[in-house]
Amino acid sequence: MSRTVEDAADHFETLRMELRRGSLVLAVLAALRREQYGYTLRKTLAQQGIEIDEGTLYPLLRRLESQGLLASEWREEEKRNKRFYRLSSEGKTIFKQLLAEWKRINSSLDGIV
Amino acid sequence: MSRTVEDAADHFETLRMELRRGSLVLAVLAALRREQYGYTLRKTLAQQGIEIDEGTLYPLLRRLESQGLLASEWREEEKRNKRFYRLSSEGKTIFKQLLAEWKRINSSLDGIV
Repeated sequence: MSRTVEDAADHFETLRMELRRGSLVLAVLAALRREQYGYTLRKTLAQQGIEIDEGTLYPLLRRLESQGLLASEWREEEKRNKRFYRLSSEGKTIFKQLLAEWKRINSSLDGIV
Repeated sequence: MSRTVEDAADHFETLRMELRRGSLVLAVLAALRREQYGYTLRKTLAQQGIEIDEGTLYPLLRRLESQGLLASEWREEEKRNKRFYRLSSEGKTIFKQLLAEWKRINSSLDGIV
């Protein structure tokens, strides 16, 4: 691959990641209106075409919990301890605001595109 | 404002910025399919509800140009020198890819929300 083609691929990848990053949080918050543990959450997201590896998802869950948007609890299920996450009441409020923001951004982009 | 309310506002603002960041690039690339200089570009974006201050827009334009996505040229118009920007051919390709990615993300989010 020539240097120019590599650069182009890099630039696309960087911009694609920027585009995904914000929407990923929105997807996670949306999915956690219903309580889930990591594995089922990843499966829910993947079914909707959002592939996210564990090394990205778990730090994101911890960050959102430390910000007070998620609540979690350890529970035994099928003889294994699992950490279940769900939206906190603050998380519900912020999710609604972000969703409204997302819709605004979408209609702005539609207008330009 | 109590500490907790401040925190919540901070968290929302951070997440909102993350959500906006990626889409802003998409909006700028979309608007620059037609050649424009900074002032008219800002006006175009603002008309669609995307407010962006000069301190954010100009560094972004320089970054996108240094990545080869934009081409620019200085020209005199109404007795003032203005720098006109437009998508380069690489920019056109990447714009189309990002737009496709945006549509994918949107339909994923719709599925979850």
